Amino acid sequence: MKLYTLKTEIDAVPVADDFIAIEAPRPDCPDGGIVARVIYLSLDPYVGSRLRGRHMGEAPPKPMEGAIPGAIVGQVVKSRAAGVSEGDFVHAMEGGWQEFAAIPAGHFRKLDPKSAPLRAHIGVLGMPGLTAWAGITQLAKVMAGDVVLIDAAAGAVGGTAGQIARIKGASKAVGIAGGPEKCRLVTETYGFDACIDYKAEGWQAALKEALPEGASVFFENVSAEMAMTALSVSQTYVRGVLCGLADAYQSSGPAPHALNAGAIIGKRAQLRGLVVYDFYSRWDEYAAEAAAWIRDGKLAFAEDHADGLDQAPALFAKLMRGANVGKPIITVSEEQA
Amino acid sequence: MKLYTLKTEIDAVPVADDFIAIEAPRPDCPDGGIVARVIYLSLDPYVGSRLRGRHMGEAPPKPMEGAIPGAIVGQVVKSRAAGVSEGDFVHAMEGGWQEFAAIPAGHFRKLDPKSAPLRAHIGVLGMPGLTAWAGITQLAKVMAGDVVLIDAAAGAVGGTAGQIARIKGASKAVGIAGGPEKCRLVTETYGFDACIDYKAEGWQAALKEALPEGASVFFENVSAEMAMTALSVSQTYVRGVLCGLADAYQSSGPAPHALNAGAIIGKRAQLRGLVVYDFYSRWDEYAAEAAAWIRDGKLAFAEDHADGLDQAPALFAKLMRGANVGKPIITVSEEQA
Repeated sequence: MKLYTLKTEIDAVPVADDFIAIEAPRPDCPDGGIVARVIYLSLDPYVGSRLRGRHMGEAPPKPMEGAIPGAIVGQVVKSRAAGVSEGDFVHAMEGGWQEFAAIPAGHFRKLDPKSAPLRAHIGVLGMPGLTAWAGITQLAKVMAGDVVLIDAAAGAVGGTAGQIARIKGASKAVGIAGGPEKCRLVTETYGFDACIDYKAEGWQAALKEALPEGASVFFENVSAEMAMTALSVSQTYVRGVLCGLADAYQSSGPAPHALNAGAIIGKRAQLRGLVVYDFYSRWDEYAAEAAAWIRDGKLAFAEDHADGLDQAPALFAKLMRGANVGKPIITVSEEQA
Repeated sequence: MKLYTLKTEIDAVPVADDFIAIEAPRPDCPDGGIVARVIYLSLDPYVGSRLRGRHMGEAPPKPMEGAIPGAIVGQVVKSRAAGVSEGDFVHAMEGGWQEFAAIPAGHFRKLDPKSAPLRAHIGVLGMPGLTAWAGITQLAKVMAGDVVLIDAAAGAVGGTAGQIARIKGASKAVGIAGGPEKCRLVTETYGFDACIDYKAEGWQAALKEALPEGASVFFENVSAEMAMTALSVSQTYVRGVLCGLADAYQSSGPAPHALNAGAIIGKRAQLRGLVVYDFYSRWDEYAAEAAAWIRDGKLAFAEDHADGLDQAPALFAKLMRGANVGKPIITVSEEQA
């Protein structure tokens, strides 16, 4: 089978040329686990960091050997797991850029193909969606009347976070995104009240104008510097979710990640660090709730889709440049083989 | 009457020579307010920042005119306030380095001289104590089993915070302080389980050893850098109270105040900025609760005391050098005139 791996160890933001396809034997089925035919492959910003050994202490894949990590939706072709049969659909975080993936016991979830489109489990019902839900409902505890500010709002996490905030009663959701096309997605598809284009001149004044009452919640996906901008247009007692530092995932220089303690004290801010791993045990609960929102037309999602595993390197490089609009998804094989 | 003021505007950490005594008329009594004879004067670290115009946007006093700010305990000599008579004892945040202070309506609290020693209202029942209480009970919500780490632990805020944490059920309180004399105060008088001398070699290893289980709460009084050290010896989900940045109050250089966002996310930390002003409405409640702790021998306090307003410049300079052991208090006049 085909598998994409790193050509060599890398120390900079990955580009398409860092990846190479190799032939590998189809994996054996682990005790209590499964082998899945990969249908959809997720490309996510944190992988850019992980490939350089900079994400949560997780090792990068071995060059010319290990598959590039990535979440998948797949169909079981071999099962040694109780209650799982050939033909069942599954979601797994450690699937990888390959045609078939061996998933150990406890590292996959069975999916109900009738509850929502299968590919939704890559994005809005997948890790980005769970992250958004955890930050908005479990950490910030958004409620009626909250005014929510979210950056990287065109991304799968940010776009879902704003929609969930509105579903949970927020009176206003303001996004920050890069460029008019992304901002249109944020307001037109995701239904935010406003979106500020941070690549436009005077965007900080525009942000202030869009939030005359100040944000009561901010959801940070980009950088410590952006978090401090969010703090500056926030109300006293603002609750801030520190979710991600995409700028650092996508850049090679040293990232200071510096939050200003004096500003946090002055604003009486509450900041909480979010790691989505902590919420994996609640994934089925979230996916069931959000699948109903999708069916009811309350929760929209956008994809930047490409067909075929061979498209992964280029689509990943596009993500690293921030040029994608919508969640990057690779269709590796057909839903029905 | 005598009043201490700034000789000129200052831009560096204040030294004794920055202050000068001038003669000023005794203040008039404001509508609805009082005039108090100052008995005890509090010297506090944040004033070092405020004199340079760097504290919460509050203006420094006008040179050769305005009194140096400072909380006081005093006795009413003139009252135009309902329910307040000559001879009553009061506490006021905006008293100042002077013999008599005019206090506007709503800016003082009447004290019960029988509930606790009057001078306790400068420290352990005063703003430092209220700050400690707010951080431990209202922000960190310390409960049974918490392991609490507190820096500037020999200070009035830190020392009280550790004691209140133990009263509220914390299983362990570890302090950080500078020098063996301060550390003795922390363990022997304030009853912390351990105190790490940050001026001693290998103190960071000693800190780690003192907290094999990790801190579940840290209370930060010194600097962003110290907060990051506290984070590094903390449990996942640690609650951090950002209370003060004494290093910045006491230094002239630019203070980065930089908290590392990546480390906060990795630790799933919860950080909250504390401004004690927000808790002024609960001062009487706190003082009553803490006065009972003092009577029961559960809450100790130490003073670095000097007699006479003329001692204020030297004692304040000592505080700015971090050389005080115990809360700096000036006795300006006798309790019974």
